[in-house]
Amino acid sequence: MSTTVKAWAAHAPKAALEPFEYEAGPLGADEVEIAVEYCGICHSDLSMIDNDWGRTRYPLVPGHEVVGRIVALGAAVKGREVGQRVGLGWFSASCLHCGSCMGGDHHLCANGEETLIGRHGGFAERVRAHWAWAIPLPPLLDAASSGPLFCGGITVFNPIVIAGVRPVDRVGVVGIGGLGHMALAFLRHWGCEVTAFTSSESKREEALGLGAHRVVSSRDRAALKQLAGQFDFILVTANVTLEWNLFLAALAPKGRLHFVGGVLEPIPLAAFSLIGGQKTVGGSPLGSPATTAAMLDFCARHAIAPQVEEFPLSRVNEALEHLRAGKARYRVVLKAGA
Amino acid sequence: MSTTVKAWAAHAPKAALEPFEYEAGPLGADEVEIAVEYCGICHSDLSMIDNDWGRTRYPLVPGHEVVGRIVALGAAVKGREVGQRVGLGWFSASCLHCGSCMGGDHHLCANGEETLIGRHGGFAERVRAHWAWAIPLPPLLDAASSGPLFCGGITVFNPIVIAGVRPVDRVGVVGIGGLGHMALAFLRHWGCEVTAFTSSESKREEALGLGAHRVVSSRDRAALKQLAGQFDFILVTANVTLEWNLFLAALAPKGRLHFVGGVLEPIPLAAFSLIGGQKTVGGSPLGSPATTAAMLDFCARHAIAPQVEEFPLSRVNEALEHLRAGKARYRVVLKAGA
Repeated sequence: MSTTVKAWAAHAPKAALEPFEYEAGPLGADEVEIAVEYCGICHSDLSMIDNDWGRTRYPLVPGHEVVGRIVALGAAVKGREVGQRVGLGWFSASCLHCGSCMGGDHHLCANGEETLIGRHGGFAERVRAHWAWAIPLPPLLDAASSGPLFCGGITVFNPIVIAGVRPVDRVGVVGIGGLGHMALAFLRHWGCEVTAFTSSESKREEALGLGAHRVVSSRDRAALKQLAGQFDFILVTANVTLEWNLFLAALAPKGRLHFVGGVLEPIPLAAFSLIGGQKTVGGSPLGSPATTAAMLDFCARHAIAPQVEEFPLSRVNEALEHLRAGKARYRVVLKAGA
Repeated sequence: MSTTVKAWAAHAPKAALEPFEYEAGPLGADEVEIAVEYCGICHSDLSMIDNDWGRTRYPLVPGHEVVGRIVALGAAVKGREVGQRVGLGWFSASCLHCGSCMGGDHHLCANGEETLIGRHGGFAERVRAHWAWAIPLPPLLDAASSGPLFCGGITVFNPIVIAGVRPVDRVGVVGIGGLGHMALAFLRHWGCEVTAFTSSESKREEALGLGAHRVVSSRDRAALKQLAGQFDFILVTANVTLEWNLFLAALAPKGRLHFVGGVLEPIPLAAFSLIGGQKTVGGSPLGSPATTAAMLDFCARHAIAPQVEEFPLSRVNEALEHLRAGKARYRVVLKAGA
């Protein structure tokens, strides 16, 4: 079985997307084919379009925050059926037999495949993935706004789980954008005392509405110094350079500073800033299918949804510019077939 | 009750120690007085003598790896008795009522007192401490070699506990000196596969005898690169600058790099080096009284003892020079009354 897929593709770095058709070839034994209903736009789509990481092959069909329905199953697919609504994020496949996969950490599989690398993504009518990464959407969740959960959402949910954040913890979220706004909602419903750190005055009131108990400027040295020793967990979703030593100092004993934003400039870490208070600095990529499913259940139970702005797929270039301009509040979603 | 204490003190940075007597004053209600039998010498004693950290007040009586017997009890002491053999390390007191103390983390108490700061240490006939930090020595442990457990030992034992190292883990110890040689023994008896990293060819054979399954040069880039992805836990006891990114790369997914050596130069930490493999970098100071007691039981059960060289207290300056010259194999202990 093959499929001719109508999609939008970039043909060169920073180029506008153009209508593009490709032949998907035979469906892999472990793959499902998904009819895309919605696809979120992530900053990583911009990075891939621009070839910021030197990993892009053109033509590139971006899109890795898919919600859609399964329309075909490979011969060896397990636990999925035609008609089922699923989500697909950054990862499209993992080997299922290495130590990481067998240990439940499929997102750490050394032979994992990414939705935009060597494959085509979700700005399209159809997209394919290994069944393990086509994760069923609970019926209570809204298809139109759930796409961003599968990349941005799990990226900030997974750290809460792996760092063992407890409802009694005092936590901070640095950067209130596509990722940060979901982190605020997760942590508020997790039961924590939540502080938002943002450099944008305009987001102050919104952050309170999104779940923060208080908002602090991420560039106000004096304010940050006053917070010394207060936080059990600080999640950094920003990808700019901040005064990291002030954030380390803001940690309580045994506090954890966790990066999911790809801060490019090295963080100058003083060993003494970790030793005295028994602190840690960590990082993580997305999360496993099991943790993603747990996140979806948590969202359904607490009525958590990303705040999205919807564009028809036919206006994808306008939507990309909206995100590039920093105007997204807070995640942009494309509606397929529109 | 007061006590005139015969001790050895430094009167200026880098000065030789001289015989010194001081009046200890009334014994605090929560304090015990310990008749020193043995006292280890730690690199921190040299740092304090030299005022490397700007925290030294002279005259300084160094010494914070004490083993001795309790000879007097303050009015409010709990759980200790005269004649009991105890050990005393870097910490001399903690408040016992803050969140850290009440949570069992007395070593993270913001109002903790240190044996050499505002007090006099163990290069003396007598030393005093809060009862909570005078930790009973199990009868099976040898008094002459156990002093180093109370600073160097617990410094490397605590990370194994707090990082949740498991007997199935592949672990590394960077720097095979006073701390590192104890870490090798702990981790070998913990059940792990143990790799020693040292820049000293002369320690290669010794490291195998101390518990390592293999030895790798900590400055051999090619050898380090070949170890990519292999370690669940790497404990850094060295205080020199190494190529930390190679050690981060040597971590397996979910691996932890842990610093207890006071590496002075900032570690240039790339967020991406943590994110992909869900890795963490941590640090810690010593350990709680409860973890110290657990370490002592572990040592008794597995016949673990620091390797020490003994000097009489009267030859303390010679002993200090031996350590300064990097000749200690692996910890120097002073015998009091000799």
